[in-house]
Amino acid sequence: MTDDMRIAALEGRLRKLEDEAAIAALIASYGPLVDAGDADGTAALWAEDGSYDVEGWRMSSREDVRAMVLSGSHQEIITGGSCHFLGPAHVTVDGDEAIAVCDSILVRRRDDGFVIERAGVSHFQLRRLPEGWRIAHRKTRLLDGSVEARTLLVEGVRGRPV
Amino acid sequence: MTDDMRIAALEGRLRKLEDEAAIAALIASYGPLVDAGDADGTAALWAEDGSYDVEGWRMSSREDVRAMVLSGSHQEIITGGSCHFLGPAHVTVDGDEAIAVCDSILVRRRDDGFVIERAGVSHFQLRRLPEGWRIAHRKTRLLDGSVEARTLLVEGVRGRPV
Amino acid sequence: MTDDMRIAALEGRLRKLEDEAAIAALIASYGPLVDAGDADGTAALWAEDGSYDVEGWRMSSREDVRAMVLSGSHQEIITGGSCHFLGPAHVTVDGDEAIAVCDSILVRRRDDGFVIERAGVSHFQLRRLPEGWRIAHRKTRLLDGSVEARTLLVEGVRGRPV
Repeated sequence: MTDDMRIAALEGRLRKLEDEAAIAALIASYGPLVDAGDADGTAALWAEDGSYDVEGWRMSSREDVRAMVLSGSHQEIITGGSCHFLGPAHVTVDGDEAIAVCDSILVRRRDDGFVIERAGVSHFQLRRLPEGWRIAHRKTRLLDGSVEARTLLVEGVRGRPV
Repeated sequence: MTDDMRIAALEGRLRKLEDEAAIAALIASYGPLVDAGDADGTAALWAEDGSYDVEGWRMSSREDVRAMVLSGSHQEIITGGSCHFLGPAHVTVDGDEAIAVCDSILVRRRDDGFVIERAGVSHFQLRRLPEGWRIAHRKTRLLDGSVEARTLLVEGVRGRPV
Repeated sequence: MTDDMRIAALEGRLRKLEDEAAIAALIASYGPLVDAGDADGTAALWAEDGSYDVEGWRMSSREDVRAMVLSGSHQEIITGGSCHFLGPAHVTVDGDEAIAVCDSILVRRRDDGFVIERAGVSHFQLRRLPEGWRIAHRKTRLLDGSVEARTLLVEGVRGRPV
């Protein structure tokens, strides 16, 4: 192989790792931002027309995500002490699209400690935009043994959309 | 340094990062696959003759892992709603062998929320096979303050087998 | 671009990924080491004059961290069975300095299972030393909805010191 070919191969492999790391970092910032009540910061993780489908909420824009963070129900959660604890994301990049999946638990403060209110799975479809990777669609379901939750888990690991 | 030497150095460093990322991804897929009851997908994380030693189970092949996922006791756990929540893995690669360690909690659904049934440490020995990194040995112990659990934690971080 | 320029660009990008991975690995080793009671190993994650500010403790050297691990209160926690479970770190590298943030929960064994005693946020300032990345300052606060905790979360994601 010529130097040129070896350098081009390295550029492609490095780009893949950078993409995976950028997406993992994006997802790792969700919990801190949403627990801090940073509505603009949380919304900016999504594409302008990105969606977030979670039990009880159907958001279909950055503005909807912003409104969720500012809502009375979310403010009540974070004011009382909360940890939206997301696990390590499994990321599959395909050009300018990507799929990621992770588990998460919602930990809330009670009088005598903390309790887990929810355990869920989040399936992400992401897009490379000029400003970087952003969430195009996120679907979160309770881990309650349902077929829907299992589908998010498996398709997420397989790197397939849902 | 010549261009050739610089390129070779980059190739080696990149390979190390790719190996670490592949192993982290493999481990990050365990929870989703096992909670989904994907017996074949879970088993495929192991080498054909890989082992998994966890309280109550001694598995010594891919087929044994598959049987564990399909077992009545595992099916009862996941049907009721479960999250095998694994933390970020600490990975040490040495050629075609690697050691990884991570914490994990088993979160299960109860009538009024979720509880942590177990908190444990998992120590992994991995091998590079033609199809990619696979688990050669996994040993999981309850974090109960025992010497055995402490050994898995420390040797895991040091990158040493147990 | 000449080959030389392309190689130099790759070297810089790879170095950034290596730095992020090294810091993530450093943070991922804290939980295992501190739950194992490895006082020297835990202390070695800090710079010699590094600090750790957590409710109830103000440590300002490696020796102070070591003393915390060996203290009666920490030994009581780990002897009874504990999991200092840290989430994936969000890391921002700037030359020889870096900022990282992650959530964590302290899981402790009780008679009939495990409970979450604390959920917190940790904000890290790190420095590149001859021996590798080390913690210069770590500040950990309970996720209780306070302004202080929110500041750690947001500044951590923004890659800013506190």
